[in-house]
Amino acid sequence: MLSSLPERRNYRYDAIAFGETPLAVVLPESTADVVTAVRAARAAGVPIVGRGAASGLSGGVVPLQEGLVISFTRMTRLDIFPERREARAQAGVVTLKVTEAARPHGLVYPPDPASFRTSTIGGNLGENAGGPTCFKYGVTGDYVQALEFVDEAGEVHELTRGAYDLAGLLIGSEGTLGLITEATLRLTPPPRHVRTLMAHFAEVGQAAEAVSRAIAAGAVPSKLEFMDTACVGAVEDYLHLGLPREAGAVLLVDTDGDDLETVEAERALVETACLEAGGEVRRAATDAEGDALWRARRSVSPALGRIRPQRMNEDIVVPRSVLPEVVREIRALGDASPFPVVQFGHIGDGNLHPNILFDPRTESEEAVHHLAHQIALVAIRHGGVLSGEHGIGTMKRDFMRDAVDPESLDVLRSVKRALDPQDRLNPGKILPGELEAPHAHP
Amino acid sequence: MLSSLPERRNYRYDAIAFGETPLAVVLPESTADVVTAVRAARAAGVPIVGRGAASGLSGGVVPLQEGLVISFTRMTRLDIFPERREARAQAGVVTLKVTEAARPHGLVYPPDPASFRTSTIGGNLGENAGGPTCFKYGVTGDYVQALEFVDEAGEVHELTRGAYDLAGLLIGSEGTLGLITEATLRLTPPPRHVRTLMAHFAEVGQAAEAVSRAIAAGAVPSKLEFMDTACVGAVEDYLHLGLPREAGAVLLVDTDGDDLETVEAERALVETACLEAGGEVRRAATDAEGDALWRARRSVSPALGRIRPQRMNEDIVVPRSVLPEVVREIRALGDASPFPVVQFGHIGDGNLHPNILFDPRTESEEAVHHLAHQIALVAIRHGGVLSGEHGIGTMKRDFMRDAVDPESLDVLRSVKRALDPQDRLNPGKILPGELEAPHAHP
Ligand SMILES: Cc1cc2nc3c(=O)[nH]c(=O)nc-3n(C[C@H](O)[C@H](O)[C@H](O)COP(=O)(O)OP(=O)(O)OC[C@H]3O[C@@H](n4cnc5c(N)ncnc54)[C@H](O)[C@@H]3O)c2cc1C
Ligand SMILES: Cc1cc2nc3c(=O)[nH]c(=O)nc-3n(C[C@H](O)[C@H](O)[C@H](O)COP(=O)(O)OP(=O)(O)OC[C@H]3O[C@@H](n4cnc5c(N)ncnc54)[C@H](O)[C@@H]3O)c2cc1C
Repeated sequence: MLSSLPERRNYRYDAIAFGETPLAVVLPESTADVVTAVRAARAAGVPIVGRGAASGLSGGVVPLQEGLVISFTRMTRLDIFPERREARAQAGVVTLKVTEAARPHGLVYPPDPASFRTSTIGGNLGENAGGPTCFKYGVTGDYVQALEFVDEAGEVHELTRGAYDLAGLLIGSEGTLGLITEATLRLTPPPRHVRTLMAHFAEVGQAAEAVSRAIAAGAVPSKLEFMDTACVGAVEDYLHLGLPREAGAVLLVDTDGDDLETVEAERALVETACLEAGGEVRRAATDAEGDALWRARRSVSPALGRIRPQRMNEDIVVPRSVLPEVVREIRALGDASPFPVVQFGHIGDGNLHPNILFDPRTESEEAVHHLAHQIALVAIRHGGVLSGEHGIGTMKRDFMRDAVDPESLDVLRSVKRALDPQDRLNPGKILPGELEAPHAHP
Repeated sequence: MLSSLPERRNYRYDAIAFGETPLAVVLPESTADVVTAVRAARAAGVPIVGRGAASGLSGGVVPLQEGLVISFTRMTRLDIFPERREARAQAGVVTLKVTEAARPHGLVYPPDPASFRTSTIGGNLGENAGGPTCFKYGVTGDYVQALEFVDEAGEVHELTRGAYDLAGLLIGSEGTLGLITEATLRLTPPPRHVRTLMAHFAEVGQAAEAVSRAIAAGAVPSKLEFMDTACVGAVEDYLHLGLPREAGAVLLVDTDGDDLETVEAERALVETACLEAGGEVRRAATDAEGDALWRARRSVSPALGRIRPQRMNEDIVVPRSVLPEVVREIRALGDASPFPVVQFGHIGDGNLHPNILFDPRTESEEAVHHLAHQIALVAIRHGGVLSGEHGIGTMKRDFMRDAVDPESLDVLRSVKRALDPQDRLNPGKILPGELEAPHAHP
């Protein structure tokens, strides 16, 4: 247990916001330790925030009240069962470690949030994390066969998937319904071959058109990433890779599989679709060339960090057919605001990340929040949802009132009450309520 | 509304059991009609059973008390949105119709329960139905983007998938948490080519070994079906197809995809795995030949019907690695009982259907239930679960006590209470309770 103030202060933030300093931080090594901590918090009548690597982008681990933080980073037991193609991981196992341990057995764990070198399995389950390969391979929840969790009373439950898929309900519930201590994860053999292609277009509508055509032609790319002009410009300023600054939209596409000819045929389908939609195409001849093309996408985070010290990373999902309109409307909102707004995302799923860049020392956080709200409303107006993979947390909590009708919100509240009657687990997250939202990093 | 006794008596059974005759049956045509019916039942203080095509195999639609049956068979509106690759279906739409309507747009709806010519989308969601293509393509829930449901108070809610995945909780909840009125379903382009192979083995362990080797070699068959000796014998007695009666196990395997060479290469992987495991292989040269091989599997139901008029169809899932042992233990239980027991199932997922054949006029239903319980215990002992796709219903309700620890059962109960505080929605299903289980068909 950490109780000194300097230590405790390290546990009040995630990647976007900071809140109250916890009264105490425990670092359990076993489920039994978690039970003890939960019972102690209950006896003391204080709230509990479960915490992984704190790489979350929606304020999920930020305490809104004084209480206990349970940090899972020491729960790192990991067993691989190659014959069953399963891993059993404690909550604190770092995402990347699962694939590292499985690879000698010819297996990998596909879910690939860009934060996979630091994020934990518990945090991935908490947010139902996705990544570039979602379009073909699915999100975290698709790989969870079973999980163990500790409820607010300190009881331990093991759940498989089935009638009353409570495991499914816990996945993505951001630590508000129970604390996940272990999970059984499905592993798969990795594809033998990957082929990469980059395409650029004068206009975002053409990029969306190319994606729709490629998919309609039967291609199932393993990655399908989009960057808008502002995003391309930021990366180019940073790395001088020779990216087409004048392009309205850039696509990065991987196809993969075990048969090289099929993988190349599938890339050819994508290429044809891009050309027909009016794009220009660069094909990577080798894996190394493919890796070089992906460098552009991987560098988005540091490139944006050079423009403004802080950013609000939105995470909307809209039907692919309305994507061009949505991108244009958000660009117009950005242009009318004092903030640079860049857009990128997993275009295959219609999952867009509009990022608002700002400097919290000189610019109004309220204005940022207002713009984020306007962007969320664009998504909702076009039949979209508030989050693809980063969760609701505190950041989009208040937008839930726009996205979910009051009756359905009441149903969500009654489920929360059923599992956490005293609102002790991560209070103030997901559901709009009284607790004040936290602040961006100073 | 149907109120005459002869009409109402038609609404007291499903494919395996019958119960109380409902007080009234309503056949809504819209969500508004469902709301009216739910409010009327609430005012009258009677329970509600939602009903699709009543093809269920676990007693899900069987009323355990007098009350209202809401039959969804007239809610058949279906819209296809090809650009979005989505269908919006009312609950009463027959499963097959979705693919029939989507096919002109080059799309299909993959989930394929064998009952797809009669079962409804509402019933498929109620049970989270699967089918032979599950191993590659997933189950019903994997294709649900959003759903509309009416709660016990008569409020209408539209849910997308996301934080607090209540839609996921409703899927597979067998009408006990809410009545699903509409759903948005994901469509996909069908594979261009399919290749079929049949293999037989002296011993079930070899078949399991072949499956594990094929998957380890990188094959992802679209179908992977298993039949034991008793099952092969029953089909052969019925159709005289020249199946190998002496075989301890038969596998039927499809590979599919858009590139014929890859599809054939994948089948070759499976073939090699079967030969290495000691099997003999028959390859279908044409689609027609493939169809002929599948005839054996399709005829299992009528073939078993000739042995005994009634059967109890179990639906366990076990890790694939323990499958040989599980099949052997169940065979031993069958041999020691007065009933013929045949086994078949989706071996890729470890989903086994041991069927107990009996004659309800002359044989003890209690003895059948006892044997079914023994079989369920074999699954649980080997780390398996009670249901892969048919649900818990009334049939396996009491086995939940063996499968789920008391604390986790309490959590399931609290979720049920949150959504249906007065236990008005399909009472007596899934959760073990006081209401008596129904009887098999006379
Ligand atoms: C540079 C960068 C890139 C990113 N890229 C992606 C991406 O591509 N895709 C994506 O989905 N996300 C991405 N993220 C967001 C973030 O990394 C993910 O949400 C990740 O899943 C969080 O894992 P974590 O261990 O850091 O969880 P935390 O941030 O510590 O926690 C996240 C949530 O889960 C809860 N939680 C944590 N552990 C448990 C537990 N054991 N039981 C119950 N609840 C728990 C917390 O209370 C919190 O609500 C990115 C973040 C950064 C900084
Ligand atoms: C020959 C045969 C083969 C079969 N093969 C398969 C198979 O391969 N895979 C498989 O998974 N199943 C199979 N089944 C079982 C059954 O067909 C499936 O469970 C199917 O999904 C049931 O659909 P239904 O419309 O008949 O539902 P019903 O039997 O009418 O209802 C099933 C459950 O869903 C609930 N329900 C129905 N409609 C709604 C609604 N609108 N809202 C909320 N709840 C509702 C009911 O209350 C009940 O609990 C088979 C059955 C038979 C007879």
